[in-house]
Amino acid sequence: MSSSPALSPQPLDQGAPRAALLETLKTRFADRFSASQALREQHGRGESHHTPAIPDAVVFAETTQEVSDIVRLCSQAGVPVIAYGTGTSLEGHLAALQGGISIDLSRMTRILRVGAQDLDATVEAGVTREQLNTHLRDTGLFFPIDPGANASLGGMAATRASGTNAVRYGTMRENVLSLTVVLPSGEIIRTGGRARKSSAGYDLTRLFVGSEGTLGIITEVTLRLYGLPETISAALCSFPTVEQAVAAAISVVQLGIPVARMELMDRGLIDAVNRYSSLSLDVEDTLAFEFHGSPATVAEQVEMVAAIVEENGGLNFAFASTPEERNRLWKARHNAFYAVVSQRPNAKGWSSDVCVPVSELAGCILMTRALLADCSVPAAILGHVGDGNYHVVFAVDPHDKAELAEVAAINTAMVHHAIAVGGTATGEHGVGTGKIGYLRREHGDAVDLMGVIKAAIDPKGIMNPGKILPDDAFPSAR
Amino acid sequence: MSSSPALSPQPLDQGAPRAALLETLKTRFADRFSASQALREQHGRGESHHTPAIPDAVVFAETTQEVSDIVRLCSQAGVPVIAYGTGTSLEGHLAALQGGISIDLSRMTRILRVGAQDLDATVEAGVTREQLNTHLRDTGLFFPIDPGANASLGGMAATRASGTNAVRYGTMRENVLSLTVVLPSGEIIRTGGRARKSSAGYDLTRLFVGSEGTLGIITEVTLRLYGLPETISAALCSFPTVEQAVAAAISVVQLGIPVARMELMDRGLIDAVNRYSSLSLDVEDTLAFEFHGSPATVAEQVEMVAAIVEENGGLNFAFASTPEERNRLWKARHNAFYAVVSQRPNAKGWSSDVCVPVSELAGCILMTRALLADCSVPAAILGHVGDGNYHVVFAVDPHDKAELAEVAAINTAMVHHAIAVGGTATGEHGVGTGKIGYLRREHGDAVDLMGVIKAAIDPKGIMNPGKILPDDAFPSAR
Repeated sequence: MSSSPALSPQPLDQGAPRAALLETLKTRFADRFSASQALREQHGRGESHHTPAIPDAVVFAETTQEVSDIVRLCSQAGVPVIAYGTGTSLEGHLAALQGGISIDLSRMTRILRVGAQDLDATVEAGVTREQLNTHLRDTGLFFPIDPGANASLGGMAATRASGTNAVRYGTMRENVLSLTVVLPSGEIIRTGGRARKSSAGYDLTRLFVGSEGTLGIITEVTLRLYGLPETISAALCSFPTVEQAVAAAISVVQLGIPVARMELMDRGLIDAVNRYSSLSLDVEDTLAFEFHGSPATVAEQVEMVAAIVEENGGLNFAFASTPEERNRLWKARHNAFYAVVSQRPNAKGWSSDVCVPVSELAGCILMTRALLADCSVPAAILGHVGDGNYHVVFAVDPHDKAELAEVAAINTAMVHHAIAVGGTATGEHGVGTGKIGYLRREHGDAVDLMGVIKAAIDPKGIMNPGKILPDDAFPSAR
Repeated sequence: MSSSPALSPQPLDQGAPRAALLETLKTRFADRFSASQALREQHGRGESHHTPAIPDAVVFAETTQEVSDIVRLCSQAGVPVIAYGTGTSLEGHLAALQGGISIDLSRMTRILRVGAQDLDATVEAGVTREQLNTHLRDTGLFFPIDPGANASLGGMAATRASGTNAVRYGTMRENVLSLTVVLPSGEIIRTGGRARKSSAGYDLTRLFVGSEGTLGIITEVTLRLYGLPETISAALCSFPTVEQAVAAAISVVQLGIPVARMELMDRGLIDAVNRYSSLSLDVEDTLAFEFHGSPATVAEQVEMVAAIVEENGGLNFAFASTPEERNRLWKARHNAFYAVVSQRPNAKGWSSDVCVPVSELAGCILMTRALLADCSVPAAILGHVGDGNYHVVFAVDPHDKAELAEVAAINTAMVHHAIAVGGTATGEHGVGTGKIGYLRREHGDAVDLMGVIKAAIDPKGIMNPGKILPDDAFPSAR
C-alpha cells in the first residue's frame, strides 16, 4: 500500500515548553523515546483511509505510573497526548491533529490476574485479545469480544468495540468490569471493583469505555470471561437475494435464538474473500452462523435456525464440521476488510459502520445496495446483522479526491438514513475524526453535555484533541 | 408502622425567591401542586429506616415539558429538585435535605411505544414494571428486571436497580437503551437512539443510569424486552448449612448454567416469610431457582443444577410445578423485606446491600452470620447469590439510638469487608444518603472525578443535593 501524505502538526503556540518537554521525555525514557519520522508516521495513522497526522514524538510506556508521569508532564506543558495500542482503529483516532506525544502502550502486555472462579481477568492495556485467549487456553475460559483485528484490549475498551459475537456476548460496554485510568492531570484512578454489579455512584467505567482517549488513558482493564462452550458449531447458508438473507437473520433475532455469531457477507464480499483467503465459497449472499452451548442446546439452535433459513429461501446449510474448517471460515471473515482492499493496488480501506434497530435493517441494506449500484470503487457489504450493525468496505485511492467525495457521499447517505430510523452513525468503530460531523445530528443537544463533561475533565484539552466532539460542543464555542 | 420524626429543611438562605417560586408553581399547576404536610411527609421518605426530610412542596408533573419547566424555575430560584417515582427506595434518596420541590412522576404512566420486532419499548418514567408487563401480556414479550417492589421504571433506572433475575438478564445498566433526561438547566436531551449498540460518543445513558436524580431527571426510558420463555420452572432446595447453599450457588455460576433466578433465603427469612405469606416452607437455609428456556434447555439446566445441589448436600429439590405455586413463591420472596419488618411492631426495615466477587461470597456470608449471632434485633439474610449480591434485612426501632448504632456497626463491618475483597457497598439499592460514607473507601480518588462531573453538570447543586457524593468530593471543598 502507498503511504498517504501526512499532515503536519498545527503551528505550535507553545514551542518552547514543547521543546523542553521533548528533551525531558528523551532523557527520562532514553531508547523508549523516539522522534524518528518513520515511527511518528506509523503512530499518526490507523488502518483506514483517513489522512494521518504525525505526533512530535513517541514514548513506549511500560507501567501505569509511567503513563501518569508522561501525562503529567504533557499537562504542565499543555501538549496533546494520544494513546496508541495496535494502530488498528478505523476512524482517524490516532491522527495527532495538534502534534503532541503518542504514548505507545503495546509493551504493557502483562496479564495481571485471572479469576477463574469469578470468570474475570485484569490485564494491562496493551494485551491483545489473542494474547489473552492464548493465555486462557488451559483454563476452560475465553474472552469472546472479537472485532476482527487483533486489537489491544485497552484500545477495544477505548472505542467501545464489539464485532462478530456481540449478538450473544455483548460489546466492550457489557464486558468491562472496571478500568485503571490516567486522568488528564496525571492522576491515576480505578473506576470500580470486581463485583458483577454495583450501584455505588456514577458509572465511570462506562464513561471511559468509548471515550477514545479524550478523557483519560486506559492502562488496565478488568474483563468478564466466559466458560468455553462445550460444543461449537458453524454453518454457512446462501440466499437468492440479500433481502432474504436479512429476513432470515431478523427472524433469528426476534425468536431470541442465542446464536453466538450471525454474519452477513454479500456476494461481492464472498468473491473478495475467496480470492484473498484461497477459499471456494459459493459466490452468493451468505449468512454465516456460529452456535455455542451444550450438545443438546446447539442441536436445538441449529434445528430452529435451519427451519428459518429454509422458510426464507436459503439454498443450502453447510456445516464447517471441523475446528480447522471453522477457524478458516472465521479467519476469512476477519480478513474481509483486507480482502476488499487488496482487490485494488495501492488502495486504502474505508469502512462504513452504521447500526440500526433490527426492524429497519432490511430497508437500510436495500437502500445501501441501491447507493452502491453505480459506485466506481470496489465495495462489499458485510455485517453483524444480529445487532443491526453492518459495514460497507470500500477500496479507495486516498489521493483521488473525486473518488473520496463519491464514497463520502454514500457514507453520509447511509449515516443520515440510519439516524433517521433510530440508529447510530457508528456501531463499533467509534467517532474519531470520521464521524464527528454526524454527532450533532445523532445526539442533538446532548452533544453540548458531552462538551461540558470533556471540558470539566480535560480543561486544557490535551487528551486526543479533535476527536469525538465537534468544536461547537464546547461551552466556550457557544 | 410508626411515623419517624421528620427533619425540617435547612435554614433557607434564599427565602424570597423560594416563596416566589412556590407561588409561581401553585398558580401554574393548581391542584397538581401541594404543600400539605401529609403529602410532603410522604414525599420525603422511602421505605427504609432513614430519617425523612420533607420538601417545601410537591408538584405532580404529567409531561417531560412540565418537568423541564419546573426544573428551569427551580434553577432560576436556586431551589433543590428531587424526583419521586413510587417512593420505594431504601437509602434515603428522597429526603429533601435542603427542602425544595419534589417532582412526583407517578402520573407519567404512558407507554409510548412497544417495538415488538426490535424487542424494545419506550415508557414514561412513572410506568411501573408491573404496568409494563401487564401491557406486554399479549405480545409474548416481557421486561425481566425485578427489584421486588413494584417500582417505577424511571426510579429503577435512576438507582441502577436489578433484583432476582439479574443473574440471567443483567441490571438496568444493561437493559436501558436510552433515556430522555431533563438537565439541571431545564434543557431536555435524549441520551441515545434505539440501536442495540453504538460507539457514537460518551455513554450518557450509563452516566444517568444510577445517578439518583443528582445530574438530571429521567422522564422517559427506552428498555430492552425479551421473549417470554417457552418454559418456566421453579424449584426450592434446602441445605444443612448456609455454607453448603452458597457453595452450590457458586458452582452453578461457575459452570455458566443460565439460571434465571437463584436466591438464597436463610432459615430466619423462611420463618418470617412463612408467617407473613401463610406458607409452610421448610425452615432451613434454602436456595430458590427459576429456569427459563425451551423444554429441552430447561430440562438440561434442571438436571445440572440438581446434580450440583446433591453434591453440596442439598436435602430435597422440590418443584413449584404450577404457575400459581411459582407466583406464590416469588411473591413471598418479594415480600421478604416486609416479612422481616412485620415481625416487630412499629419497626422500620434496614436492608444492607453488599455485592462481592462470587468467589468471596461464602466468606462474606459466614462473616455476616457471625456478626448477626449476637444481634439484638430481628435480622435475616437473603440474596441474589448468582451475582454475589446479598442483603441482611433488620427490623429496627427508628427511635432507638443504641439499636440503630448496633445495626450501623454491623452494616459498616459488612461494607468494609465487601470493599476489601473487591466488592461494593451497594449492589442495587444505590448510595442515597445511606452509603455516602463508604464511597471514598470504595472508589478512592475516583470520587473526586464524580465531583468534577457533578459540579460541571449541576453547577448550582440543585439536583437532589446531599445524595451520592460526600462533601469532600467537590472541587470547591478541596
